[in-house]
Amino acid sequence: MQAPNPDSLFPVAGVTLGVAEAGVRKANRKDLVVMSLVEGSTVAGVFTKNRYCAAPVQVCREHLAASSAMRAIVVNTGNANAGTGADGLARARRTCDALAAQMGLSAAQILPFSTGVIMETLPVERIEAGLPAALADLAPAHWAKAAEGIMTTDTLPKAASRQVTIGGQTVTVTGISKGAGMIRPNMATMLGFVATDAAIAPELVQPLVKRAADASFNRITIDGDTSTNDSFVLIATHQAGNAPITALDSAEGAALQEAIVAVARELAQAIVRDGEGATKFISITIEGGRTEDECCQAAYAIAHSPLVKTAFFASDPNLGRILAAVGYAGIDDLDQTLIEMHLDDVHVVTQGGRNPSYREEDGQRVMKQAEISVRVNLGRGAARATVWTCDLSHDYVSINADYRS
Amino acid sequence: MQAPNPDSLFPVAGVTLGVAEAGVRKANRKDLVVMSLVEGSTVAGVFTKNRYCAAPVQVCREHLAASSAMRAIVVNTGNANAGTGADGLARARRTCDALAAQMGLSAAQILPFSTGVIMETLPVERIEAGLPAALADLAPAHWAKAAEGIMTTDTLPKAASRQVTIGGQTVTVTGISKGAGMIRPNMATMLGFVATDAAIAPELVQPLVKRAADASFNRITIDGDTSTNDSFVLIATHQAGNAPITALDSAEGAALQEAIVAVARELAQAIVRDGEGATKFISITIEGGRTEDECCQAAYAIAHSPLVKTAFFASDPNLGRILAAVGYAGIDDLDQTLIEMHLDDVHVVTQGGRNPSYREEDGQRVMKQAEISVRVNLGRGAARATVWTCDLSHDYVSINADYRS
Repeated sequence: MQAPNPDSLFPVAGVTLGVAEAGVRKANRKDLVVMSLVEGSTVAGVFTKNRYCAAPVQVCREHLAASSAMRAIVVNTGNANAGTGADGLARARRTCDALAAQMGLSAAQILPFSTGVIMETLPVERIEAGLPAALADLAPAHWAKAAEGIMTTDTLPKAASRQVTIGGQTVTVTGISKGAGMIRPNMATMLGFVATDAAIAPELVQPLVKRAADASFNRITIDGDTSTNDSFVLIATHQAGNAPITALDSAEGAALQEAIVAVARELAQAIVRDGEGATKFISITIEGGRTEDECCQAAYAIAHSPLVKTAFFASDPNLGRILAAVGYAGIDDLDQTLIEMHLDDVHVVTQGGRNPSYREEDGQRVMKQAEISVRVNLGRGAARATVWTCDLSHDYVSINADYRS
Repeated sequence: MQAPNPDSLFPVAGVTLGVAEAGVRKANRKDLVVMSLVEGSTVAGVFTKNRYCAAPVQVCREHLAASSAMRAIVVNTGNANAGTGADGLARARRTCDALAAQMGLSAAQILPFSTGVIMETLPVERIEAGLPAALADLAPAHWAKAAEGIMTTDTLPKAASRQVTIGGQTVTVTGISKGAGMIRPNMATMLGFVATDAAIAPELVQPLVKRAADASFNRITIDGDTSTNDSFVLIATHQAGNAPITALDSAEGAALQEAIVAVARELAQAIVRDGEGATKFISITIEGGRTEDECCQAAYAIAHSPLVKTAFFASDPNLGRILAAVGYAGIDDLDQTLIEMHLDDVHVVTQGGRNPSYREEDGQRVMKQAEISVRVNLGRGAARATVWTCDLSHDYVSINADYRS
């Protein structure tokens, strides 16, 4: 995996980004990002379903419930402002107040985001002090820099960009994300921001962000830990000059949705590829299920099994562990004699047992790859789902045993 | 943790045990155990809810459905005979046939158990060849030796024993168990066998094994992986000379149940203490829940979180990770502002946020201990539940990355 080339990231008309070093947790580190949105922009988001959601998530929900006409986004790393009670909520509001004052906006036009350590007091005065530098840095070309500015344990910044032609106009979709641990998004990832200049009816932005999340961030997992701060935000600045899109199932709506899903999926997969300690990228497809939900259930059981994940790390085709995970996924009337399993092109399991023609060296060959696909057919229906995950390595333990030190 | 002292394990009248080296997977390793039960014994069991249950589990269920009057138990390690389809089932039956022929029993009077690698063909001919040596070894005092004979990645054998006086007679309860990975029993552990010589109405043995499992093996987890082979079996030989127990809620029934639960819990906790790579033993109690189920849900979310488990490994009081796990446990209407958390005697969280009087060094002190208790109050009811688990260390990864090699 490589850092995104800044030149491959198209600016989005109506969006500028600025980055500063506020010293939230550590000095000399880009840890504060401001995105300024042109007047008239529409913003929608999906947020963690963790009941212990962070203070900034609560403020975002509150502001978006009142209006989708946001004008700025502010992100700090180093401190998640989660598990911080009423005091944390006050500090998230104070961040919005400070930025509103400096930008000549109202606090309700600002969405705050935090990511980092949980249950520590947010040093809001450092964020206030850092805002002028971030505002002075605002520029349309700063997407790659902003991707760096929202990193925590990420080893690489994550950004993606697409251009499509809609109604004869070039429309841009560009986004950034962060996250490497505590990743099993439920509605959204740690942090993801995607912006488009497409003109689109404002009421379509919310269903669009939900669809994009379900096809991307809601299908990845690293360690099964759903963060307190997961947030995925879609910004539409309406600046592209296309005739406004009025339905998602029109040709224009579909083209925009496809571009947004492509960007969101690239960002989500980049999070998995950069998973804490990850050495392999694994696609798990469950097919032949009765419902998409039960396919997801089985896929996540495999993706979260520490035994499966360590086998991938070891390149060991100990594939019975995958069967065991399917078996305990909670599909109560599963018939094991109907199960088929493929590892890439290798047919490993048939009628629930080892395929007589399966040879260990074929499994071994696939397990050594950097990208592996597992395909399990449940033999009970036509539904399917794919989940992306990574392996569990020594480095995952090292990173998380040392995270705060 | 230490190996049990063989002298502390009371023999159970009517039970003899024999061990052999059958070379199922590796040579020169005790890997075959036979338990012979006196005529008139009653046997009941609880088995994995994994839908990919192993062939021997299927045979056990079948035999126990027909009768509780079992006469022998045979256990092999090195191969789980799971994910092996119809051929695996035939091999499990052949094991019973072979032992029946050598003991002069019918195959239906025998319960077979296997544990080890999944999805490999069971070398049943090696088991057949090993049976005479196991039978020649049968003796009442061989509980400790049998505990060794059922080990796989266990570093220590697990056994426990109690004597209680019931109706003026000394009654014995002795048991053995194994398991160190793929441990999140759902009905029972990898393998657990408890025998008592108490005289008891045969129809009470099944409810008794269920109650004992729910208070012990069904409350432990190491890695969240529910095995394909989990089995917990209770044997009553009725030889103690007490007036037969006719109700579990009588004084005599309660005394026996208490002794059986004590043995089962000691065996279950021994599995956690010997968890793959485990360096810490952690008790997680959730109280103030509306139902025991939701308390278990929250306790397991904490117990399965790789982030929580690595923090325990590192002795790092990164306790926000525990709050995050409570938040994503799936209790939809949880009010985070009512949460209280203690780490041993240290009051860490109050009203959902950091307790102002909590000092990091107090958390640090507790996290350094070899045994740690986490207590979370949900503030919404009177139910409670306790789950036992261990930390996630580098050695867990090493052990499971190398298991088959």
